[in-house]
Amino acid sequence: MSATFTPLHLLDAWQAAALLARRELKAIDLVRACLDRIAEREAQVQAFVQLGADTALAKARELDAGPVRGLLHGLPFGVKDLFDTFDLPTAYGSPIYAGRQPQADAAAVALCREAGAVLLGKTVTTELANMFPGVTRNPHHPEHTPGGSSSGSAAAVTDGMLPLALGTQTAGSLIRPAAFCGVVGYKPSHNRVPRAGVKSLSETLDTVGGFARSVRDVALLGAVLTGDARLADPAAFDEQAAAPRIGLCRTFEWAQADDDTQQAWAQAEMALAGHGTHLALPASWSELVRVQKEVQAFETARSLSHERLRHRDQLSAPLLALITDGLAISGEIHAHNLQATAGARQQAQALFDQHDALLAPSSVGEAPRGLDSTGDPLFCRSWTLLGLPCVHLPFARGHNGLPVGLQLVGAYGADQRLLAAAHWVHQRLRS
Amino acid sequence: MSATFTPLHLLDAWQAAALLARRELKAIDLVRACLDRIAEREAQVQAFVQLGADTALAKARELDAGPVRGLLHGLPFGVKDLFDTFDLPTAYGSPIYAGRQPQADAAAVALCREAGAVLLGKTVTTELANMFPGVTRNPHHPEHTPGGSSSGSAAAVTDGMLPLALGTQTAGSLIRPAAFCGVVGYKPSHNRVPRAGVKSLSETLDTVGGFARSVRDVALLGAVLTGDARLADPAAFDEQAAAPRIGLCRTFEWAQADDDTQQAWAQAEMALAGHGTHLALPASWSELVRVQKEVQAFETARSLSHERLRHRDQLSAPLLALITDGLAISGEIHAHNLQATAGARQQAQALFDQHDALLAPSSVGEAPRGLDSTGDPLFCRSWTLLGLPCVHLPFARGHNGLPVGLQLVGAYGADQRLLAAAHWVHQRLRS
Repeated sequence: MSATFTPLHLLDAWQAAALLARRELKAIDLVRACLDRIAEREAQVQAFVQLGADTALAKARELDAGPVRGLLHGLPFGVKDLFDTFDLPTAYGSPIYAGRQPQADAAAVALCREAGAVLLGKTVTTELANMFPGVTRNPHHPEHTPGGSSSGSAAAVTDGMLPLALGTQTAGSLIRPAAFCGVVGYKPSHNRVPRAGVKSLSETLDTVGGFARSVRDVALLGAVLTGDARLADPAAFDEQAAAPRIGLCRTFEWAQADDDTQQAWAQAEMALAGHGTHLALPASWSELVRVQKEVQAFETARSLSHERLRHRDQLSAPLLALITDGLAISGEIHAHNLQATAGARQQAQALFDQHDALLAPSSVGEAPRGLDSTGDPLFCRSWTLLGLPCVHLPFARGHNGLPVGLQLVGAYGADQRLLAAAHWVHQRLRS
Repeated sequence: MSATFTPLHLLDAWQAAALLARRELKAIDLVRACLDRIAEREAQVQAFVQLGADTALAKARELDAGPVRGLLHGLPFGVKDLFDTFDLPTAYGSPIYAGRQPQADAAAVALCREAGAVLLGKTVTTELANMFPGVTRNPHHPEHTPGGSSSGSAAAVTDGMLPLALGTQTAGSLIRPAAFCGVVGYKPSHNRVPRAGVKSLSETLDTVGGFARSVRDVALLGAVLTGDARLADPAAFDEQAAAPRIGLCRTFEWAQADDDTQQAWAQAEMALAGHGTHLALPASWSELVRVQKEVQAFETARSLSHERLRHRDQLSAPLLALITDGLAISGEIHAHNLQATAGARQQAQALFDQHDALLAPSSVGEAPRGLDSTGDPLFCRSWTLLGLPCVHLPFARGHNGLPVGLQLVGAYGADQRLLAAAHWVHQRLRS
């Protein structure tokens, strides 16, 4: 499959990166192709809060004239407006911070720029990366939510506006919008990507990750963000690689998956026949969704102390409700919840003795109709609490013709093994 | 011991808080007493980068006229200049950020204000909370370092300028300055205090904590910061409380403790006779100091990506050296180090089956002479890596007449148990 037949703005990041590194593609042309696509589609999708077109074009020319900088040389990228950027305002999706111009880049943004990526713009986040939606629409259907909180990043990558974009997940804010938009989303192992310069909500949960249109692409991004070059090792994505051992894990929330997700599951079971074995989770894990909700509420209420104390009237009703819930949880219950989390994280290790990755639902179903909610992060909560790396794999369509997929979950710290397995599985699911 | 014979600026926080809550002491009088002490001593000690005297006086009057707000009602506090404050500039001890005015309070600052504390000023930090010193001097001897990186907070509390101050620890930045200044320093369990709005260096290590002049005082602060009211439960500090079981833990670095620390240790062993038992650490823990150094360097180099990429000429030589070291560590080695950390954190749990807390050295010895270094965090590195809560207890003097003490280390998440044990031990050590 030659890249020459793919429009530039739809090239996978890893393919574009290879062409850019060999000087067979110019950064300026790729940036222009993305800007053209944005010009064509942004009025409909509304993925961006800020575009930095002139700066991006200048940067692309500079990169074309100089040496190859790194793994992301010449690749345009977008950044959820929860990450500080020194050259574009950062408002966290909240009127409290309208027009705020940070002095420095978030560490993850600076790492991408160091690797040669070109910042094209800031993408829409829900209010303070919580439930109250932004303006972004699902590129597949404008009356459906793109998911959140990393709404603009998922929508922009899906729609061919960008090959790569950064997001964060505290409940389901990477995997859910990836599922609703039909794009690959990657949540690395907790604590492996620096959060410096990203608005903080929860010490236990917040994780920096990103979106792309293939597993190899998010692996490239992951290598830069984690500082672990092994993630992007081409050998992991060799077509002759040994088949991974997949644990089929419907989770305790299975009954809440709708027909679309259950059909995608059945399709995946068939495609993976012989490579997947059913897996029972520890019984106590039926509590993890509740624990995650309580940990998120407790920690968010405290991380957003300035906002709740001094800008209460500028917080949405759903966010105030979450904060009220969080403040009602005692320190004793929170301590119990963190202890339960630590215990479950230890138990999780054993699941990966026999499996390279677990297959699990990403979402209840397709992106719901309506823009007043970003949908339910139900199927992401436990994995986020466990701190495990996750990759969403889009491969099917639901009853409305919107994307459906499943996620693959890896052992803590074994992101390379997960990404290799995800690539293998994704090839089978899409063929 | 009646409070009426203690000058206001030397009152313990918990005593002042009780008087303030009963309206037997006015916040305005306590704030004035602290400001008077600062006026008298600041030229010598240089603990502050910014004072907010007028705002503090106005706030104190407001508190005196209204209802009792919370656990810290009317107590003046200082904040390391690594925490954002909406009403005072925050420069992280770096020329890169000179004059920077954040829009919001760090979560820890907002939590203290919510509990009724009165912000008096921002205290000196070393450059970006690393090794390059600030201007602060040791209040006990102006030619000796106060330790770092929370230099100003430790010095101000020691010197009676403030009853409470916030700091952070990544290697030894709370316990070491507490030891060198002779004040109680408290590093809570990792991840239990929100870091929102605090300049981030290391996901694995950064911990928010504080200083006061008694264990009960840091417990009061800890209750507010962690949201766990049990930490300040007066029952834990009852004179009739059962004796804690103390593990005497010289650590693998014992040979590097100097005569002053070794004498303080001998003194403590005698004072605790019958309540302490010697404890051997797992053999693999001899590696933890190296692991901590590598984790800190790897993560700091990436968290400070914006600074190293765009403001290299404004970083000190020692910080650039640490960053260079960090960038030379491969992702593979870092992954091994984090795995070793997780393993050691699991092993640490068993140490507390038989012990409520471990006694260990805090520092090599007294504060070294000279202001071009803040001293060696050697004896703090392993405990920070393990994420365990620590309290420094000052109780002795070294050969130069400067303070010497030891730290007590608790089980992860068992901060209340640690603080109760620390109170008990401190009473014995000081009597």
